[in-house]
Amino acid sequence: RQESDSTVENSDQQKTEIKETPLDGKIKNIGKNIKKVKESNWFSKLQTSQGALRLYSVLAGFIYIYFACSCIQYLGYYSPWYKIWGLNKEKTPSTTFTIGIDTPDVVREKTKECADQFNILKVKLGRDNDKEMIETIRSVTNLPIAIDANQGWKDRQYALDMIHWLKEKGIVMIEQPMPKEKLDDIAWITQQSPLPIFADESLQRLGDVAALKDAFTGINIKLMKCTGMREAWKMVTLAHAFGMRVMVGCMTETSCAISAASQFSPLVDFADLDGNLLISNDRFK
Amino acid sequence: RQESDSTVENSDQQKTEIKETPLDGKIKNIGKNIKKVKESNWFSKLQTSQGALRLYSVLAGFIYIYFACSCIQYLGYYSPWYKIWGLNKEKTPSTTFTIGIDTPDVVREKTKECADQFNILKVKLGRDNDKEMIETIRSVTNLPIAIDANQGWKDRQYALDMIHWLKEKGIVMIEQPMPKEKLDDIAWITQQSPLPIFADESLQRLGDVAALKDAFTGINIKLMKCTGMREAWKMVTLAHAFGMRVMVGCMTETSCAISAASQFSPLVDFADLDGNLLISNDRFK
Repeated sequence: RQESDSTVENSDQQKTEIKETPLDGKIKNIGKNIKKVKESNWFSKLQTSQGALRLYSVLAGFIYIYFACSCIQYLGYYSPWYKIWGLNKEKTPSTTFTIGIDTPDVVREKTKECADQFNILKVKLGRDNDKEMIETIRSVTNLPIAIDANQGWKDRQYALDMIHWLKEKGIVMIEQPMPKEKLDDIAWITQQSPLPIFADESLQRLGDVAALKDAFTGINIKLMKCTGMREAWKMVTLAHAFGMRVMVGCMTETSCAISAASQFSPLVDFADLDGNLLISNDRFK
Repeated sequence: RQESDSTVENSDQQKTEIKETPLDGKIKNIGKNIKKVKESNWFSKLQTSQGALRLYSVLAGFIYIYFACSCIQYLGYYSPWYKIWGLNKEKTPSTTFTIGIDTPDVVREKTKECADQFNILKVKLGRDNDKEMIETIRSVTNLPIAIDANQGWKDRQYALDMIHWLKEKGIVMIEQPMPKEKLDDIAWITQQSPLPIFADESLQRLGDVAALKDAFTGINIKLMKCTGMREAWKMVTLAHAFGMRVMVGCMTETSCAISAASQFSPLVDFADLDGNLLISNDRFK
């Protein structure tokens, strides 16, 4: 072994010969490759060097931290309006669901269908079959009912009598009992009504609220009438400052607009937000 | 060369000997290492394989896209209150700067110092040297002046006469001319005053606003008194609904709180937000 060692290491000729064997060619190539890698650009160094694992670990660590921070940021700042306003969404009331005016048989059938799915129903009255509608629904369910009279009662005494009758039938609120022009009559009704009276047609925007404070118990705020979230919020603020109650209503809307309207619903007494449930082409469902 | 080749490849004894040279030991180790790398886990493969560059490039691309999206998100949702409220910050009024009560020489000197830096001054009156203070300041500058009477005038006729005199001296508004208990006297002053009268000590929170609507022209909202941004905004909403004017004031505060108060200042008539300018230990400067 000593001899072999000395042969390789000390004899120039022997060295030369060994270098020129195929095996030695491989050695040279490997050495060349290692040198190449060592002298190539920083990225290649990273790929092959021992420090790469550490570097990428640190990088991955930063990415995770950054991602976590972004998520926190997102949760904090991509705030829905109810959070900006500081409301508790657990206090959102159940929406009413509208039972359309129809023949008693159809009304009975419809009421049966939705009685299990909703906690409160809504019925539009103000016609000559008001009592029939209510009796029909009451033959099927005892759910609380909200009434939208749609300015339909023309006489204040008739309206008040109807409200007393409705109170006996488990109705919980009345919207717009008389035409919006008859504000004094409505004030007269509200003063004596056993049920809260809400303004619907009487109200559009923030500027209308003050004039209604002595005529109605509350107001029905609809985004599509009041121009949007900011004004809606001001209307809620103003109504509450006047000691009025607030309900939120809707038009025929997709769940996009309903979702917007629901943002201030934790503060309302009644939510009439079934617009998206009454259409078949809700793109935001 | 042929002989050497055959020596290495064909002679078992010669091979054995070569294997046992230090150089051959190195060859074996290199081979072993390559094998190790090839058979080790996927991460090591990534580090050494040709696809690593591509993979990391794609990863980096995603990180950049993610970062860009986060930035857009951040810009969009890390919204200051004035943006949430939909206000135009260009409409922010200049803050008043308070000239403290002192000897005429000191007041004259102080006024000279700050007359170039501010567009409106503030002076606290309600003592027996009120006219002297104003005359002293007017000997130096014609800047508009806001007055805080600090409940200091005890008689309503005296207060009204002072206000008329002040109006002639280029004063633009009066805060709290009389004690908060004397709401009727204040209402009497406001009715006849040529200058707007703002409530300061008379007001703390949202619930106080309604009672002041017939006694004052406007209210001075201070965050430290009204509990914060949301209630301040409700107070602005309510005051405006009552046709009242709004000013924003402050306590001795850092620029952190002043910045918060300035958020609704685009809607105010007067901003008295010099609290941070009167302290030397503003950590948020």
